[in-house]
Amino acid sequence: MAIEGKDEIYSGRIRLGMVGGGSGAFIGGVHRMAARLDDHYTFVAGALSSTPEKALASGKELGLDPERTYGSYEEMAEKEAAREDGIEAVAIVTPNHMHFGPAKAFLEKGIHVICDKPVTSSLAEAKELKAIADKANALFILTHNYTGYPMIRQARAMVAKGDLGDIRLIQAEYPQDWLTEPAERSGSKQAEWRTDPKRSGAGGAIGDIGTHALNLALFVSGAEVESLAADLDSFVEGRQLDDNAHIMLRFKEKNGVKAKGMLWASQVAPGFENGLKIRICGTKGGIEWVQEHPNILWFTPFGQPKQMLTRNGAGAMPESTRVSRIPAGHPEGYLEGFANIYSEAALAIKAFRDGKTAPDVVYPTIEDGVIGLAFIEACVESSTNNAAWVKPNI
Amino acid sequence: MAIEGKDEIYSGRIRLGMVGGGSGAFIGGVHRMAARLDDHYTFVAGALSSTPEKALASGKELGLDPERTYGSYEEMAEKEAAREDGIEAVAIVTPNHMHFGPAKAFLEKGIHVICDKPVTSSLAEAKELKAIADKANALFILTHNYTGYPMIRQARAMVAKGDLGDIRLIQAEYPQDWLTEPAERSGSKQAEWRTDPKRSGAGGAIGDIGTHALNLALFVSGAEVESLAADLDSFVEGRQLDDNAHIMLRFKEKNGVKAKGMLWASQVAPGFENGLKIRICGTKGGIEWVQEHPNILWFTPFGQPKQMLTRNGAGAMPESTRVSRIPAGHPEGYLEGFANIYSEAALAIKAFRDGKTAPDVVYPTIEDGVIGLAFIEACVESSTNNAAWVKPNI
Amino acid sequence: MAIEGKDEIYSGRIRLGMVGGGSGAFIGGVHRMAARLDDHYTFVAGALSSTPEKALASGKELGLDPERTYGSYEEMAEKEAAREDGIEAVAIVTPNHMHFGPAKAFLEKGIHVICDKPVTSSLAEAKELKAIADKANALFILTHNYTGYPMIRQARAMVAKGDLGDIRLIQAEYPQDWLTEPAERSGSKQAEWRTDPKRSGAGGAIGDIGTHALNLALFVSGAEVESLAADLDSFVEGRQLDDNAHIMLRFKEKNGVKAKGMLWASQVAPGFENGLKIRICGTKGGIEWVQEHPNILWFTPFGQPKQMLTRNGAGAMPESTRVSRIPAGHPEGYLEGFANIYSEAALAIKAFRDGKTAPDVVYPTIEDGVIGLAFIEACVESSTNNAAWVKPNI
Amino acid sequence: MAIEGKDEIYSGRIRLGMVGGGSGAFIGGVHRMAARLDDHYTFVAGALSSTPEKALASGKELGLDPERTYGSYEEMAEKEAAREDGIEAVAIVTPNHMHFGPAKAFLEKGIHVICDKPVTSSLAEAKELKAIADKANALFILTHNYTGYPMIRQARAMVAKGDLGDIRLIQAEYPQDWLTEPAERSGSKQAEWRTDPKRSGAGGAIGDIGTHALNLALFVSGAEVESLAADLDSFVEGRQLDDNAHIMLRFKEKNGVKAKGMLWASQVAPGFENGLKIRICGTKGGIEWVQEHPNILWFTPFGQPKQMLTRNGAGAMPESTRVSRIPAGHPEGYLEGFANIYSEAALAIKAFRDGKTAPDVVYPTIEDGVIGLAFIEACVESSTNNAAWVKPNI
Repeated sequence: MAIEGKDEIYSGRIRLGMVGGGSGAFIGGVHRMAARLDDHYTFVAGALSSTPEKALASGKELGLDPERTYGSYEEMAEKEAAREDGIEAVAIVTPNHMHFGPAKAFLEKGIHVICDKPVTSSLAEAKELKAIADKANALFILTHNYTGYPMIRQARAMVAKGDLGDIRLIQAEYPQDWLTEPAERSGSKQAEWRTDPKRSGAGGAIGDIGTHALNLALFVSGAEVESLAADLDSFVEGRQLDDNAHIMLRFKEKNGVKAKGMLWASQVAPGFENGLKIRICGTKGGIEWVQEHPNILWFTPFGQPKQMLTRNGAGAMPESTRVSRIPAGHPEGYLEGFANIYSEAALAIKAFRDGKTAPDVVYPTIEDGVIGLAFIEACVESSTNNAAWVKPNI
Repeated sequence: MAIEGKDEIYSGRIRLGMVGGGSGAFIGGVHRMAARLDDHYTFVAGALSSTPEKALASGKELGLDPERTYGSYEEMAEKEAAREDGIEAVAIVTPNHMHFGPAKAFLEKGIHVICDKPVTSSLAEAKELKAIADKANALFILTHNYTGYPMIRQARAMVAKGDLGDIRLIQAEYPQDWLTEPAERSGSKQAEWRTDPKRSGAGGAIGDIGTHALNLALFVSGAEVESLAADLDSFVEGRQLDDNAHIMLRFKEKNGVKAKGMLWASQVAPGFENGLKIRICGTKGGIEWVQEHPNILWFTPFGQPKQMLTRNGAGAMPESTRVSRIPAGHPEGYLEGFANIYSEAALAIKAFRDGKTAPDVVYPTIEDGVIGLAFIEACVESSTNNAAWVKPNI
Repeated sequence: MAIEGKDEIYSGRIRLGMVGGGSGAFIGGVHRMAARLDDHYTFVAGALSSTPEKALASGKELGLDPERTYGSYEEMAEKEAAREDGIEAVAIVTPNHMHFGPAKAFLEKGIHVICDKPVTSSLAEAKELKAIADKANALFILTHNYTGYPMIRQARAMVAKGDLGDIRLIQAEYPQDWLTEPAERSGSKQAEWRTDPKRSGAGGAIGDIGTHALNLALFVSGAEVESLAADLDSFVEGRQLDDNAHIMLRFKEKNGVKAKGMLWASQVAPGFENGLKIRICGTKGGIEWVQEHPNILWFTPFGQPKQMLTRNGAGAMPESTRVSRIPAGHPEGYLEGFANIYSEAALAIKAFRDGKTAPDVVYPTIEDGVIGLAFIEACVESSTNNAAWVKPNI
Repeated sequence: MAIEGKDEIYSGRIRLGMVGGGSGAFIGGVHRMAARLDDHYTFVAGALSSTPEKALASGKELGLDPERTYGSYEEMAEKEAAREDGIEAVAIVTPNHMHFGPAKAFLEKGIHVICDKPVTSSLAEAKELKAIADKANALFILTHNYTGYPMIRQARAMVAKGDLGDIRLIQAEYPQDWLTEPAERSGSKQAEWRTDPKRSGAGGAIGDIGTHALNLALFVSGAEVESLAADLDSFVEGRQLDDNAHIMLRFKEKNGVKAKGMLWASQVAPGFENGLKIRICGTKGGIEWVQEHPNILWFTPFGQPKQMLTRNGAGAMPESTRVSRIPAGHPEGYLEGFANIYSEAALAIKAFRDGKTAPDVVYPTIEDGVIGLAFIEACVESSTNNAAWVKPNI
């Protein structure tokens, strides 16, 4: 798919708009690079900032037609929907509390939505958005980007094929250290909104990174959370949202086995830059994947030596090679994984144009978004009740 | 200390006996190698097996005087105490339920006890033994051997010195895979007694390896458990004791900070041979240590590059170099760490001979044993109550 | 630079053409992704294949205007130079023997050339091309892409700053395993031309990957080769070019020190996918960088602990952060490094438009190309003479 | 073997003496620990220092009978040979120039010799010693201790079994950093004699560590050096012996393949503590072993995923498990590997007592010593002749 020339259903670039992501925003640039990498999109319109001048300046800087540089997403949805050459898809890269509005507006205009996570700032909103998305004449893609890593696809395929046997254990963790000190009080915009319940919702670390870890664990294992017990903390004095989460997980029965798990998300853990890691053990084998070395998947069939599986290397399955671009030993990284979400979305959108479904295409959807918000709210409820077991309200 | 020629208080080898550890036992051989390495001991007597012929054969094989190869520990305690050249110390390496009896017998004869862990098979027994040890004219050393690794000593010294600031997070894990299948039903003696509550007590994985992980976490961090919530499992059908434990930890306040932690112990985790790992994060930095690469301690001062500290390498503190034998880059392993416990014990015993206390000497004691059993019983109680928070009854 | 919004001298995308890189070619796609990532280029013309139908089909597939899909590079140079909206730069991604012709043609039309390496298939040609490039009203950029990795930039800056002291040792290696068996005889097009002296020139492994290793070693260390002794082999029977090279290096004196080095390039080394590695030691410290984990640079100041420097992490210097896109812990890979060459080229070209030189911009040039060919020919000469010392004829 | 109770031919401890290794010497203590670990020896006599008082004090400190603490090796050989309970074996741990004399003296008395490497300080002496050893009624064991590591045994067994196919490439390296500065001029006794040609012979780094790397490469691969080209340096001003060696190797034909190799030995390489590493590639697979992580052997069957083989883990062969003491995941280190040499020697000596040969026992001999010295002298000759190819004069 991602490699040029392999794409049989390729038929013209998708016109893409963006909400948020003006100058200085980190994630907007990531989305644009991800959209560009495989050349499925043309970026043509934006409501890049809530400040009109900043929106205009950002649009200019990015080479947008000033006419298609809008002051608000509402205006953008209205006008783009009316143009013959209007956008077919929009990327929403605002803080969490600003996802619902634009997502609703564009979906209702039949414009596909590629939205950052967590999908909304509350579970109620997420469910409402799900109802809207279910009725919309457009796709909804959630950028749980880590699911785009080829070796995560490999891991998922191996679990599905039974290489691990029945799953017993799911250990997920996502430690970072960038909020060890109160960065939100020393000028970091990233830190400001992520520690502000008005903009982020009820979850701090659990929302920002805990949802990624959970999503990835479920994506690979195919498991579903039955209940969880969470112990959240705000170690930095005065911080309003959690900056560390310890969570025990119980999963729904599958083949007679009820898997268990742990999830650790932290933003106050010196020594970790972006330490997302997934370990899954079953009756027949175990796997380990570390985000900072994403081209490797460790696989141990029980009773045999540990194997180092590499992206596009020996033993790579079609599920991983189809989202790889370059040979084994030539590392692909975060942007390539992110680009895979965009390219999967593109294949789905192009098929959608023709009333079809793209084969093999996999991407996170609004359902994953609801699961994420249910997770956040269950964690908060559990933690408020001294880590009592809570069933996510999906 | 451990290196010959450095030992100023060296004064003659200690006469050592052993209870358990006959032919075919794994841990008995380990104790003997550990005792031999630094040449502080002479192994002269044993009650090596509860089967008399096996005891005799094992004694012969190990070069013991047949006269000092006893059929029971009671006999050995009696007769050795009566000899002028009787043993000064005894190593107890039987299964858990057979620790209390010999420990009591030898302590009451004024013979130093070096005992395997967990110290007993119940908390009540552990406390009773503590009372005995407190009154005894002899030392009690518990072989939580992982505390003997030099880089664990380094970590402990760094925490104590404040290099990590105030401790916020303690993540301990100890996954293994050897009980993934029901080895106890296919002839493994090691598996048999470790999954048998009559011989192991109330804890399976938590007793065998969970106590090691906890002990190490506390040893390094200096923290004390306030309460814990545990979710124990026996994944293998028919297994009577836990083979996987997920535990959340809350620690007592220190400098205004209440640290939290997680502990994972598993014997059903394919991909892990002996994956003991400790990560500790504070306000100023974080450390990570992995038992399978014990000569390395990763240290990240917050905001600075991660450092790879090595045994006897640059930055090594006296607390670690004094228990190192050979230069950096020449790996020391499990036996050397175990031998450090024996050598610390030897220094303490030799000082004890002279009515002194050996400076700098550190080893786990009966108190650590009580903490271990309180941990096991708290885990079982918590798990029985749906992972309710339980305070260990120390 | 590479991150949008940071580029002060940004002023409109560069119109880019390509010679070679039609359907199925690996490296053409890599160049296009690299050109797209930071959005400095628009791909508008191509002479993508020497087979006219294939050229047309490839152009169509890539969305080129059929009018600008040429049957030959000569035609393309002619016609594009004549257009007002003609290409400003061309990427040459053909096999080695097809670099010189197009490079000459475009340079002489004042069109900037971005050319794959080795720059030509003989030293004589390389020197001739250098003479042409020196006179041309256009830039020549050689895609020694590994110089684009941020941590390679960091390493170079650290050497330049004196963090390693005077350089004594330069150990470079580049083992691969893909030619362990005669892949050139079982249908691999990549293997075919790379083992064919008509298309590759005098060097097999030394040309394809040895030049990369050398280039990187020189780029980082600032050293110049004085002489070399090479022992080349073709382990696979019937192979016409070397598939393994063992080389000893002597460097020119610098600050009174004559550094020495070794270089190992192999394509018959099972266990290695793309194992490019550089280790440089000086009087004050040493560094190590491994291409398969490119976000890490190991740095050991003599007498201090080894440090793990990470891309955009603590200790990152401006020379590396300016070519980084995303935060530490979010791995960038091969394509991002390759894109950095394209983006450096873009900055240089944009400055060139204004008669300026872009500050801080670094990229390999025709001089590096000459050095590479001189290296290849010196290796062959040395090896032919039983590994006698040979001075590269630069 | 090494594990107690497994040793069927065990029959009483061997009486051991030592020449050299008095207080403060590093390697003497290592030999004693190695001898003690598996309990095959009793240390009963010594000529521990050439300074009589120091010899006496050292003997006392080590618990030797003063009567058997000798002032010279000649005296010791004489008197011990005359005693009924005299030593059966002697460890020679003096600097290189002091190996020949005692080795000759003890061998001629029928006392087994366990000698440090390089075996002598010149090839002529080594050959003379070989003649003596060949005639002696005693064994000669050379402590190339790295051959004792279990995973090195595993590697050797795999090569012998054909798992790698025909060997093409042997890459050995042994970088250290401890002589980066002139430590021999600031009081380091270790540095003093190792950089002194009078005591070390013609080789500096090549003698001290290069011989280890070569020996290991040959031990594992079964290859024999045909010729070598060496470029030696003394980077530190005023140093009389080489502190860095770059060597290209050509091996004798085997199964129609002439393997090639490189060897790098350095003591001026900051970043390396004791970086001995061996990589061997054949037509069917490749292996990699790193001394600082000795419990792991990386094995890549060509075209399959890389495997992490562990000591006593899945896939371990009898050749490695027989020299392992403890389960997989419990690291054994340098001393255990060294102890394996002592234990192999013990098995051989015990069998010798009975006029037998111990099955499976493997240890380096005087022949390896001759090969080592031939290597050193060939390196010096080659380097003196501008790295001309030289055939070792074995």
